[in-house]
Amino acid sequence: MSEGPRKSGGRRRAGRSNKRERVMPAAPAYVKRQIPYYEFLNEEGLVVLEEQADWLMQEIGLEFRGDPEALRIWKEGGADVKDTRVRLPRGMARELCKTIPAQFTQVARNPHNSVEIGGANHVFACVYGPPFVRDLEGGRRYGTMQDLENLVKIAYQLPAIHHTGLVICEPCDVPVSKRHLDMLYRHMRYSDKPFLGAITEKSRAQDSVDMARVLFGTEFMENNCVIMGNVNTNSPLLVDKVVTEAAQVYCGAGQGLIAAPFILGGAMGPVTTAASIAQALAEAMMVGAFTQLVRPGAPFILGNFLSSMSLKSGAPTFGMPEPVMSNFIIGQLARRLGVPLRSGGSLTASKLPDAQSAAESADSMMSTVIGGANFILHAAGWLEGGLATGYEKLVQDADRLGAYQVMLGGMPLDDNALARDAYGEVEPSGHFLGCAHTMANYETAYYDAVLSDSESVEQWEDRGSKDSARRAYERWNQLLNDYQAPAMDVAKDEELKAFVTKRKSELPDAWY
Amino acid sequence: MSEGPRKSGGRRRAGRSNKRERVMPAAPAYVKRQIPYYEFLNEEGLVVLEEQADWLMQEIGLEFRGDPEALRIWKEGGADVKDTRVRLPRGMARELCKTIPAQFTQVARNPHNSVEIGGANHVFACVYGPPFVRDLEGGRRYGTMQDLENLVKIAYQLPAIHHTGLVICEPCDVPVSKRHLDMLYRHMRYSDKPFLGAITEKSRAQDSVDMARVLFGTEFMENNCVIMGNVNTNSPLLVDKVVTEAAQVYCGAGQGLIAAPFILGGAMGPVTTAASIAQALAEAMMVGAFTQLVRPGAPFILGNFLSSMSLKSGAPTFGMPEPVMSNFIIGQLARRLGVPLRSGGSLTASKLPDAQSAAESADSMMSTVIGGANFILHAAGWLEGGLATGYEKLVQDADRLGAYQVMLGGMPLDDNALARDAYGEVEPSGHFLGCAHTMANYETAYYDAVLSDSESVEQWEDRGSKDSARRAYERWNQLLNDYQAPAMDVAKDEELKAFVTKRKSELPDAWY
Repeated sequence: MSEGPRKSGGRRRAGRSNKRERVMPAAPAYVKRQIPYYEFLNEEGLVVLEEQADWLMQEIGLEFRGDPEALRIWKEGGADVKDTRVRLPRGMARELCKTIPAQFTQVARNPHNSVEIGGANHVFACVYGPPFVRDLEGGRRYGTMQDLENLVKIAYQLPAIHHTGLVICEPCDVPVSKRHLDMLYRHMRYSDKPFLGAITEKSRAQDSVDMARVLFGTEFMENNCVIMGNVNTNSPLLVDKVVTEAAQVYCGAGQGLIAAPFILGGAMGPVTTAASIAQALAEAMMVGAFTQLVRPGAPFILGNFLSSMSLKSGAPTFGMPEPVMSNFIIGQLARRLGVPLRSGGSLTASKLPDAQSAAESADSMMSTVIGGANFILHAAGWLEGGLATGYEKLVQDADRLGAYQVMLGGMPLDDNALARDAYGEVEPSGHFLGCAHTMANYETAYYDAVLSDSESVEQWEDRGSKDSARRAYERWNQLLNDYQAPAMDVAKDEELKAFVTKRKSELPDAWY
Repeated sequence: MSEGPRKSGGRRRAGRSNKRERVMPAAPAYVKRQIPYYEFLNEEGLVVLEEQADWLMQEIGLEFRGDPEALRIWKEGGADVKDTRVRLPRGMARELCKTIPAQFTQVARNPHNSVEIGGANHVFACVYGPPFVRDLEGGRRYGTMQDLENLVKIAYQLPAIHHTGLVICEPCDVPVSKRHLDMLYRHMRYSDKPFLGAITEKSRAQDSVDMARVLFGTEFMENNCVIMGNVNTNSPLLVDKVVTEAAQVYCGAGQGLIAAPFILGGAMGPVTTAASIAQALAEAMMVGAFTQLVRPGAPFILGNFLSSMSLKSGAPTFGMPEPVMSNFIIGQLARRLGVPLRSGGSLTASKLPDAQSAAESADSMMSTVIGGANFILHAAGWLEGGLATGYEKLVQDADRLGAYQVMLGGMPLDDNALARDAYGEVEPSGHFLGCAHTMANYETAYYDAVLSDSESVEQWEDRGSKDSARRAYERWNQLLNDYQAPAMDVAKDEELKAFVTKRKSELPDAWY
């Protein structure tokens, strides 16, 4: 790494000197959990789900299609492969998963922003994948590369977003064949937080790893994870070549893979949530096992994305009690397996950053963090079932992520926290407003949500009676206006740009 | 009780035949918890807080002012009383609290709506106390008796609201000296769910108990709790006569009392949350002990209401991580004490039913239910730090309460839930949409949130691009329009009206 961490770190802190955000921890750039997990199911219940997953892998098996090399790897690894159906002898997946690191570091180009994934750590990442964007003034429209750049610049300045992901929105104005290059460049240049690589096609995954090599150096990447691919299985029980090729490219290079079954219960899995959780576990565990056949010890994150369904329309619903419960349960299952977990996010079906959006996102996210997910994609910006990225939603969510971050830090119970001296100073029926203990502690006592308005109704009216969405609109505009790019070595920047230019000249314009 | 439970129960169900609400459990009219508690603090941490509460009761003591009879009761009970300061020998409060019922029934005039309070049960009650109301068209204004009546009628029809409370808004158009009579009549007549009684003055508490006697019969009330008073201590460490007189009236009549310290950290308690939790425990526990001196075995609910503070203005903030943690912790402390708990609610500082309102309410409420509060006042309708009742907020919150209700019911793990047959019917890469297991289960598989919009953006736009607040506005208007009063014996109704008329003629118009 040739980046000047102190220099860019200094700039970063300067960019965050906003007084209202001073209660955010300056480092580390992820959350070290200090609170217990919520043990939702008992041992017996967890074993029922694990046995169901084992049964699926052993008796039903998964289809691995479109990638003969994947089938060869499975065969060589000892799986029962018939045509494209792969079944694993009882215990094989769990055995293979033992070499998955329980915790690993994803290194950022600014090492202050490197994140620990797994164990008792939490990383909040941006929404991933929406083709549309929405903001209060501009309305709903296809995302562009300019939107993606804006969103990277905003996310970079929000301390509770630890990871910018990749497709904060789909930049629909650039051919699919080329957009991964422009996207990656923006994550690399306009932020110094960790990010993801492309997966839609094997050569795009390879481009991503190659661009990371420009940024971090080939040698450094032999022993460090600096980039990951995020893939979905094709539930139910189908894994296509996007997944297995990404596994070969990323894990083959010692980099990370996240595999998340997306199961809309009643469609891609049974309509009963317990069955869908077990299926998700089986699917993700088999991809995890596959990564370890590709390269034992490669970083892998077991993913889970479970949605309930509207009885009115069959549309996916979010923040509902069934996926909330699954967030608790998959956390338990992942810890028993000993692998890092991706689940949850600030999910909603709402079109707008309104009360529905916030309620669904909060219940989804609170259960995600209590449940113990390590890598939380879609933690900020998700709207409309993942079809749109909300500019306002991004900053609203980040404000709540700061609150979860404080909660995950736990509650001090030391002598200062118990404040016995204060009761000597303040008599019963008195008040603690000016007492020594209050003066010594008030600046750090409470989370200060930037976007929450807690003033009197008269003050609020004087300031224009702005609702949360309007304040969020003003905030992201301010952030975009205030943006200063993190420092980057000019030669490195040129090298990255040259890579992008060269690859774009080699590739056809294709929209798939 | 002379009410015809089957008859009015039948009407109630008829009034709820709305297809969209069919997934709500028809009975019982409260939540039987099937999921574990979240054990946030370990044994050592809990003991630290209990010892702090013991220290406060023993060394600092509480002031009991304005009620000499209360001091006499304390002295007779063995407390150390000096002037108005009451200190309890170590262990005395805990010993006295042993006669508090761990669980009791509050009987409703429709016995189908009676609720179990304590143990592994949860009761959701309306917001209590706001002087203002707000709705989308009418804006913010002082509450009136008509508003209170409207809100009772709406709450009556919302299945996830189990208890209508009392002061859903302050009816500011009726003199304070008389409004309790009109309020109680409306709760008794326009709903058949359980409710609370007045506490602001001893004679008003007595009027409440007397009206309950008209409705339920004196003899019935000797052995059944049908009404409760809800009081606040004057934190820090002061208990005034409103509390001790309410305890004597309600508990003296074998009825219930809820005592909730309202602590804005940094003002009415230390700025560190741990100290404020311990102080709240000490204050509420001492009132609980007092109720048991008044009448051993009287129903008592230990209350807790902890607010954090805005660093910008000193205003109370809600839904923030510190009170969220306190919701988990006070649940643990109350279970160790073995008494029913009131805490939390759908709290927010927001003026509008917007994203801030929903996020803060959701985090507040999710932690409340996971933490195990038994009686949850302010579960629906709270806005603006408790200064305003939101019509839209009431129905929005109720929609989310239904989701918590489903979560509290836990996740089935039986053979049907595991759906192994479905994997015989559906091949890998297929779909479960029409399979037998889906057809047999889809109607009950997922919570169907009435107010959540999960349709496509095109459908949503066709229907007018309505946000959550607009849909909530339409829903409460529809409910008010559709309202049908529960059946009531005509003679009983006349007797209640006569009581109200007589008492109002005896009382002066007073505005305090």
